[in-house]
Amino acid sequence: MKLHGNMSIRNNTLYIGGVSCTELVNKYSTPLYVFDEGLIRENCRKYNKYFKVEENKNKVAYAGKAFLTLYMCKIIKEENLCLDVVSGGELYTAHKAGFPMENVLFHGNNKTIDEINMGIELGVGRFVVDNFYELDIIEDICKKRNKVQEIYFRITPGIEAHTHDYIKTGQIDSKFGFVLINGDLYEAIEKLYKYKNIKLVGLHAHIGSQIFDIEPYMDEVDIMMDLVKEIKIKYNIDLKEIDLGGGIGVYYTKEDNPKSIQDFCEAIIKRAEQKCKKIGIKVPKLIIEPGRSISANAGSTLYTIGSIKDIKDVRTYVSVDGGMTDNIRPSLYKAGYECSVVNKMKYEKVNKVTVAGKCCESGDILITHANVMDIESGDILITTSTGAYGYSMASNYNKIPKPAVVMVSNGNHRLICKRQNYEEVINLELI
Amino acid sequence: MKLHGNMSIRNNTLYIGGVSCTELVNKYSTPLYVFDEGLIRENCRKYNKYFKVEENKNKVAYAGKAFLTLYMCKIIKEENLCLDVVSGGELYTAHKAGFPMENVLFHGNNKTIDEINMGIELGVGRFVVDNFYELDIIEDICKKRNKVQEIYFRITPGIEAHTHDYIKTGQIDSKFGFVLINGDLYEAIEKLYKYKNIKLVGLHAHIGSQIFDIEPYMDEVDIMMDLVKEIKIKYNIDLKEIDLGGGIGVYYTKEDNPKSIQDFCEAIIKRAEQKCKKIGIKVPKLIIEPGRSISANAGSTLYTIGSIKDIKDVRTYVSVDGGMTDNIRPSLYKAGYECSVVNKMKYEKVNKVTVAGKCCESGDILITHANVMDIESGDILITTSTGAYGYSMASNYNKIPKPAVVMVSNGNHRLICKRQNYEEVINLELI
Repeated sequence: MKLHGNMSIRNNTLYIGGVSCTELVNKYSTPLYVFDEGLIRENCRKYNKYFKVEENKNKVAYAGKAFLTLYMCKIIKEENLCLDVVSGGELYTAHKAGFPMENVLFHGNNKTIDEINMGIELGVGRFVVDNFYELDIIEDICKKRNKVQEIYFRITPGIEAHTHDYIKTGQIDSKFGFVLINGDLYEAIEKLYKYKNIKLVGLHAHIGSQIFDIEPYMDEVDIMMDLVKEIKIKYNIDLKEIDLGGGIGVYYTKEDNPKSIQDFCEAIIKRAEQKCKKIGIKVPKLIIEPGRSISANAGSTLYTIGSIKDIKDVRTYVSVDGGMTDNIRPSLYKAGYECSVVNKMKYEKVNKVTVAGKCCESGDILITHANVMDIESGDILITTSTGAYGYSMASNYNKIPKPAVVMVSNGNHRLICKRQNYEEVINLELI
Repeated sequence: MKLHGNMSIRNNTLYIGGVSCTELVNKYSTPLYVFDEGLIRENCRKYNKYFKVEENKNKVAYAGKAFLTLYMCKIIKEENLCLDVVSGGELYTAHKAGFPMENVLFHGNNKTIDEINMGIELGVGRFVVDNFYELDIIEDICKKRNKVQEIYFRITPGIEAHTHDYIKTGQIDSKFGFVLINGDLYEAIEKLYKYKNIKLVGLHAHIGSQIFDIEPYMDEVDIMMDLVKEIKIKYNIDLKEIDLGGGIGVYYTKEDNPKSIQDFCEAIIKRAEQKCKKIGIKVPKLIIEPGRSISANAGSTLYTIGSIKDIKDVRTYVSVDGGMTDNIRPSLYKAGYECSVVNKMKYEKVNKVTVAGKCCESGDILITHANVMDIESGDILITTSTGAYGYSMASNYNKIPKPAVVMVSNGNHRLICKRQNYEEVINLELI
């Protein structure tokens, strides 16, 4: 198991951010999400530095859907990142956390009228307009409120990136954005002649999530810069901001070989400069929107091992006190994870087991082929890199309460999400 | 779209349980789960009748994981079904709803010590013991409390049923139960010689979910009855109750051709009688545990259509105001659904579209190839048969609040789960 960020081993025990995992379990119980605040902040700073946020006035916007809580908003604000939200709920969270609304980008393929109203009322910096339906609603609401809203158009650039179909977004056949090749984008731009309450300031594209190749991003940069030039010539509109979407893929298991944040950022900036020089335009402000690559490796999940079932010549099932309710990615995307036993870190990993969740469903398997040391019921198992799309996708399936979330840093721990109790699980129900 | 239960069309509008869907939307907004109480009760009564609950003292236990709320517990109680729970949370719900604990069966491959304690304290009728770890804990707790707990052993009978891998449970390679062929079951029975606070009263097996063939059930009956005889001979233990697990598969789309509840129940009872006669034993009390076949067809989801994106020669995306957050089955199991537009029921279905959810993820597609009438933004779309594993698997991904749930019956409607608000979505978070 790879040790990420501020993980270390002392006396056979795993420490994260200087705090012993067994101490955390004693205090907060399991299942428990543990986030390494230092690593989150380090990732934010690397993005800001290598994407030249100060120098070039570029922007890095954290994609909140990966993991967003009130405390996370606070970190993102303190680290001077912008924030992507994709719903009224995320917007509400940012607002409650005091996040500066002018630094919020509002995404989504089907924002409801209520959500659009809320975004305009709160004053989000940019709507990333996905379609004509949204465009009309924004104009309508802004007109009534006598406001001008700055927007990007989201386009589907027609890039096929190598990743899971579910998180591939750049291809033509996508629910997101204005299609480039069929003239939709131009029709949208032309609509703006009569829409006086909308100001187009940029374009957005997103080619997918958990991508390791840099090539698709290079293609994306080229397409976007060509568009900037074309739109200037055709409509005399200066697009000052170009949003290139997500960050780089991350390490989950040995099979993943991600680029560094530095290499990723530098490659994009360099390509943009080269391309703009080549076609004779000024380099616009660039925006990227990393989510996973900021929070995934910073989060881990601690579980208590319960039943162990050894089926001779078949498989050993090791069951934990969580599962698809706190991490649906293995079932949903066949995603791989690494694990270890936090109280036996120096033991040799001599066994191959299947780590099962406690849900009443055969598909609730967290890791199919896990290398582990000799283990017993009561040991504490950790799965790493669960910081993105773990808590944010958690459910109450089987009426299992949501685990607690703890932030650790410099030897300190702080509860940032309380463990849900049974009463809270049924608090919407009436009889 | 098939009209299930008490659905009807009046004046071009869909009615469920005598209530207009547009009226429901006006009152409760969307997305909205609507349950046909009459159909739930009808399904319960059919199971009780054809499984000969009164006549033969058999039992039908509703598998709560499909859909369990306080009000649902009330219905199940009133219809004289037993109840399967799989966690402390489901147990808590049943307890709060005043469900008789002696009629509760407690399942799960990894019940925690706290959950086992809770089950014993509340007095659940049967623990369906999955493994040695659980067995030891139950004995330990019962000893301290000077109580005797009645149990079943869950076994994996080694039956391969034709269904999705995630919900296939009968095969040897399963996280559930004592393996039959390797002697685990006998070892468990022998443990009971010294475990004075546990009484074995039956066996449980479950071969999977959403199964249409009757054959695997026939095999299961045979295996279980042979076991009853074998255990009587070998250990002189009379197993009075044999629990055969889940109910029959249900209709989601035209590709599904389920057996009726009557045919399913009668086939099982007949086979058990034949088999027992053949091997010369008395027919034990039989238990089945339908979940999906009681609630799936009784539930539907209403959505408001927002953006419509027509990509010429490729596809038309119709986006709704819900998605994988209220129904993850299409993404998780590639499950199919039918849909229609409740305010245009008499229109001809002339279009093929893709119904997309509003989550910021390409995988959030509810129906890939849906036949629909001419539709516009603002129309109300219904997906049917969402009553099982819809609300129960709902998440707050993208911080989307859980929809409300309404029960309709004889022209009346009743809110049984309040719509979650934004404040409730973040109520566990601390800053």
